[in-house]
Amino acid sequence: MAFQKPTGTQDLLPGTVEKWQFIEEKARDLCRRYNYREVRTPIFEQTSLFERGVGETTDVVEKEMYTFTDKGDRSMTLRPEGTAGVVRAYVENKLYGEPDVSKLYYIGPMFRYERPQAGRQRQFHQFGIEAFGATDPAIDAEVVALGYQFCRELGLQDVKVEINSVGNAESRAAYRQTLLDFLTPMKDTLCKDCQSRMERNPLRVLDCKIDQGKFVNAPSILDSLDEECTTHFAKVQELLTAMEVEYVINPRLVRGLDYYTHTAFEYKAQGIGAIDTIGGGGRYNGLVSEVGGPDQPGIGMAIGLERIALILEKQEIGISGIRPLDIYLVSLGEAADKEVTIQTAKLRQAGFSADRDYLGRKIKAQMKSADRMQAKFTAILGDDELERGEIMLKSMETGEQRNVKLDDLANELKK
Amino acid sequence: MAFQKPTGTQDLLPGTVEKWQFIEEKARDLCRRYNYREVRTPIFEQTSLFERGVGETTDVVEKEMYTFTDKGDRSMTLRPEGTAGVVRAYVENKLYGEPDVSKLYYIGPMFRYERPQAGRQRQFHQFGIEAFGATDPAIDAEVVALGYQFCRELGLQDVKVEINSVGNAESRAAYRQTLLDFLTPMKDTLCKDCQSRMERNPLRVLDCKIDQGKFVNAPSILDSLDEECTTHFAKVQELLTAMEVEYVINPRLVRGLDYYTHTAFEYKAQGIGAIDTIGGGGRYNGLVSEVGGPDQPGIGMAIGLERIALILEKQEIGISGIRPLDIYLVSLGEAADKEVTIQTAKLRQAGFSADRDYLGRKIKAQMKSADRMQAKFTAILGDDELERGEIMLKSMETGEQRNVKLDDLANELKK
Repeated sequence: MAFQKPTGTQDLLPGTVEKWQFIEEKARDLCRRYNYREVRTPIFEQTSLFERGVGETTDVVEKEMYTFTDKGDRSMTLRPEGTAGVVRAYVENKLYGEPDVSKLYYIGPMFRYERPQAGRQRQFHQFGIEAFGATDPAIDAEVVALGYQFCRELGLQDVKVEINSVGNAESRAAYRQTLLDFLTPMKDTLCKDCQSRMERNPLRVLDCKIDQGKFVNAPSILDSLDEECTTHFAKVQELLTAMEVEYVINPRLVRGLDYYTHTAFEYKAQGIGAIDTIGGGGRYNGLVSEVGGPDQPGIGMAIGLERIALILEKQEIGISGIRPLDIYLVSLGEAADKEVTIQTAKLRQAGFSADRDYLGRKIKAQMKSADRMQAKFTAILGDDELERGEIMLKSMETGEQRNVKLDDLANELKK
Repeated sequence: MAFQKPTGTQDLLPGTVEKWQFIEEKARDLCRRYNYREVRTPIFEQTSLFERGVGETTDVVEKEMYTFTDKGDRSMTLRPEGTAGVVRAYVENKLYGEPDVSKLYYIGPMFRYERPQAGRQRQFHQFGIEAFGATDPAIDAEVVALGYQFCRELGLQDVKVEINSVGNAESRAAYRQTLLDFLTPMKDTLCKDCQSRMERNPLRVLDCKIDQGKFVNAPSILDSLDEECTTHFAKVQELLTAMEVEYVINPRLVRGLDYYTHTAFEYKAQGIGAIDTIGGGGRYNGLVSEVGGPDQPGIGMAIGLERIALILEKQEIGISGIRPLDIYLVSLGEAADKEVTIQTAKLRQAGFSADRDYLGRKIKAQMKSADRMQAKFTAILGDDELERGEIMLKSMETGEQRNVKLDDLANELKK
């Protein structure tokens, strides 16, 4: 009986996993520079957290969650996104009591039961950041800039940011009415989902992939913003320009849930012909209190790593899947074999990457292994060398070879 | 409504997460030196994989798995350990076709529904390695040594390895009979679980925590080993000694499942008074074919990271939860504020970790922030400095301060 990985999941193997390591190291290094610190929350949470924190009327919660009952009869859900868990941790661990802005990041797997396609998996991975405690437009600009710089430093081409403001609760209520006035006459021509969204959450109608074309003349939310919101949005733009982040304003970019406020944004990059959304985020001043915390503002962004990996591939940005070995030790005969075990252990303790044969192969096959592993050096030990307490060290680059004392091998290699 | 993390799970927050990052970086660096390469398999797999690969008669499979039915009506299980998924990936992706030994490692979350206690969580984390394709005792010794060196390099004190051989199928069958002859007269005095295990899997009786004391005079599996097994075990010991791995032989260390063969081992370290098992592993020459692959040998080990983190704490091995900042930028006034946004962005692009105020605080509060973040430098920008195109750079270590050109800030900091 042979087993297969579940549909919509991936094995990341040597040769490919190095690309993911590179992407993640870039994320971690950027977070170091921007002074965001890692937080790790559980892979599953109480289902009600996501109903509250992601929104009961969203497709994610309605259709796509991996929900199960645990052995203690509690409803649990594999996290479909990262923000809800981080907000829960921020509240539960009372991080809001700290004097500075809480700047947090996460990298990890998320789960949505969707139809798998290129760049979309049921187990997918996100890099995200969240900043709690500040309403300063400078932090909006910083969050947008970090994601932008992440894409740029990875080498993605034609990265663009689309930004918008969804205002505060009052200006959004005003826009909601304006939008309904626009949508109502065309209601019968809209798809079923849109008709249902009109009742529950009209802003989300604008997201509809089917009816997009009908909304060209829809009113812009920017016309409904009050002065405070307009000022905040203008300041965010001013700072993004000052930081040389390339952005365009997209008034169609709305997030329909009540706890989203002010800045909303998405990252786009050139994939295969089409422009792909690789991530996004926004300000959510109402979310912390929504999940039971104090009235603290927040803003965050998340980027899909499958998307990034796919675009790196499409844009033919090469990240080596090879990790060259420092030294491969070749042994001939049983006594040499034991000494090679000792020498390999010593070299590894000294910090070198070292490997050897485990298959009792002849010297030629061992040298081929060294080649496959792109070893910079080989060290060859036969009974003759062993008797003299020596080993033959060969540079695979220059071909130069010479005998060195066994005790000096690590020191010779350091040269 | 306030939410809580699920019982048996943890939030790893700034201040604690740095310890985990350190542990994982150590694991990754060791794997680089030993030439193991990362593999990432899905968080959940088909339930039947674990029934087959972990063993249907184990407590893990019988009582502790997070099993659920997905929206496609398939039984899935959150992985309770790492080996089964890696073996599945090795077979499904035909890694056995490669000419060299497949040396793989993984780090990640695992899930078992157990009673939570110190060092035991329902979501826990393991670092593990697997080596496929070689029967050479040198690879047994290498796998044992890597885990040992991991503990040693982390600074754990009194690390010991217990090793044993469970032989091959024939010698284990012989031992099984010898053991049954020993157990049968005392069967009525054993706990219910043991009585049941005697029928299904007598070797696992020796693991029983309740009846341990009754097995002092139990026959040793080492007396049932045939010549091949004895030679293999002797060679493993010889190489461990040569590599200076401290080990003791524990003939009671048996793994009851049929696909375990030859070397079995556990890592122990001094925790709070008691000696704690922090990991272990063994050779499993029958496992690859058990999950549908070719007849390829394998050996692996896994270490529990919660255990490691707990023992590091108990042994008071300090890993700093502080990550000092390179520079904190202090701004005074609105014009300076915008320039600080630009300068912060530039410093981050130049590779420095830089932060600033987002709360409109006065200079004194900003300087306190810089202290809390252990900033090596502060740079203070007021309207006067701004007019002159300068900023005041202050070393927080020496107290020395001087004005530098705004354009030179990154270069000055590099000094």
